[in-house]
Amino acid sequence: MTDLPSDNDVATRVGRSFARQGMMAAIGATLGSVSPGRVTIMLRPGAANAQQNGFVHAGAVSAIADSAVGYAALTLMPPGRNVLTTEFKINLLAPATGGRLVAEGRIVKAGRTLTIGQAEVFAETGDDRTLVALLTATLIGVDER
Amino acid sequence: MTDLPSDNDVATRVGRSFARQGMMAAIGATLGSVSPGRVTIMLRPGAANAQQNGFVHAGAVSAIADSAVGYAALTLMPPGRNVLTTEFKINLLAPATGGRLVAEGRIVKAGRTLTIGQAEVFAETGDDRTLVALLTATLIGVDER
Amino acid sequence: MTDLPSDNDVATRVGRSFARQGMMAAIGATLGSVSPGRVTIMLRPGAANAQQNGFVHAGAVSAIADSAVGYAALTLMPPGRNVLTTEFKINLLAPATGGRLVAEGRIVKAGRTLTIGQAEVFAETGDDRTLVALLTATLIGVDER
Amino acid sequence: MTDLPSDNDVATRVGRSFARQGMMAAIGATLGSVSPGRVTIMLRPGAANAQQNGFVHAGAVSAIADSAVGYAALTLMPPGRNVLTTEFKINLLAPATGGRLVAEGRIVKAGRTLTIGQAEVFAETGDDRTLVALLTATLIGVDER
Repeated sequence: MTDLPSDNDVATRVGRSFARQGMMAAIGATLGSVSPGRVTIMLRPGAANAQQNGFVHAGAVSAIADSAVGYAALTLMPPGRNVLTTEFKINLLAPATGGRLVAEGRIVKAGRTLTIGQAEVFAETGDDRTLVALLTATLIGVDER
Repeated sequence: MTDLPSDNDVATRVGRSFARQGMMAAIGATLGSVSPGRVTIMLRPGAANAQQNGFVHAGAVSAIADSAVGYAALTLMPPGRNVLTTEFKINLLAPATGGRLVAEGRIVKAGRTLTIGQAEVFAETGDDRTLVALLTATLIGVDER
Repeated sequence: MTDLPSDNDVATRVGRSFARQGMMAAIGATLGSVSPGRVTIMLRPGAANAQQNGFVHAGAVSAIADSAVGYAALTLMPPGRNVLTTEFKINLLAPATGGRLVAEGRIVKAGRTLTIGQAEVFAETGDDRTLVALLTATLIGVDER
Repeated sequence: MTDLPSDNDVATRVGRSFARQGMMAAIGATLGSVSPGRVTIMLRPGAANAQQNGFVHAGAVSAIADSAVGYAALTLMPPGRNVLTTEFKINLLAPATGGRLVAEGRIVKAGRTLTIGQAEVFAETGDDRTLVALLTATLIGVDER
């Protein structure tokens, strides 16, 4: 492990946690960029995330948007702290379909107890980019186990 | 197909649509009971729906809760009409873990344009039953394609 | 003050706090019943709470629903602790109008840090009772000043 | 009335509607700037909008944020159409207090049936400006009466 960045490196930390989120692999999501307070997650539309009409399921859109905000929060947490989502709200603005979805999470306020973040989810096809969902989440810091 | 109930039969209708929701299979969800205005969906906790600590991912909890409400709404729609979620809000009350999760969706108000429903998600282990999430959703009726 | 119930009496405690909520008087709201985990607040529709069509303003419906949940939470708090709303979500199901509105708040889960509650708001005219709004709120306990 | 702008003028239209919202006057709110898709509303903290600790009541913060989004939606509606809020979600990020609150509403998506908007609420004291709340709302267009 000597060549790896330290655990304090947020990208490494987020990458390791993301790799343990079995659901992300199951629905076809991959980790994108990671920087302090900002994380993106991508999703390839397909059978594993489809609803009955072939669009991406609201639950899959929510999953990547929630994870993007959760990991954005994690980048601002001291080592040994983890985050859990306590609630979120999502508005689905347009059918989620296309070449890929990109969820962009960012932190609005990192408080002592609660952290508030938002995510936008875009559907991208070629050069076309459509906003398909907006999520606002509250997260709570917890000690890592 | 002559022995099957007609498409008007809500259980058949919901069952057929559920079978097309690839995401439900991908995350390990199965359809439970279906009656007018009420639908339950079950989820077996496992790798395909896990977050980083081994609990069920908030996105998976949301997916079954949202689908339970969506199908509860579909049971009240005339043939040829479908429903799409326009927004939902979920509060995660306790870590989602245990033998299985059960999402119970029901319709609060079926309006001309918008339908409002709620779902409770319970974690069940043996005789133990814990409320782990509450979801409220708005759905809009659309013509089926 | 010797004839008054002690501060531990939840009804007294809620009543004293409610009397300090200047907004409740300004919009014509009054405190109804108070019991552990449950509080009701009434509102008389009128100019002080009207929106542009003469219905009760969504903000007034929200104010009584939020206060009903907040006071329901307060009834479960030890003396010296207060509650603040950190977020809420409200669905407005029908035009809020009629003889009076009644917001019924109750606690779903009282946690160590966060408390989750819900309120239903009914419009009452004579014997008629219509559900006009559903609110879900998260509250956080804070030390009283 | 000959010197007044026409009803199509959005500022006039919003101003006339705002003047009929009795609640805005009751809680001390005033209309700020109006442009297509954007409206601001101000509130002077005081007894008429206070909660028990002297901060602005979450219901008052919600009322100005909801109205700011609602009027932002109205600016994009054809004459003869009005808007009603069907649901909103608000996160309260910091105690609402100071010299004045400013709610800035803007439209995220104006759809055929539903319009989605967001508002930020800032507390201003001298040169200091703190984000105290974030609201996301769904509105539905209705024929004016």
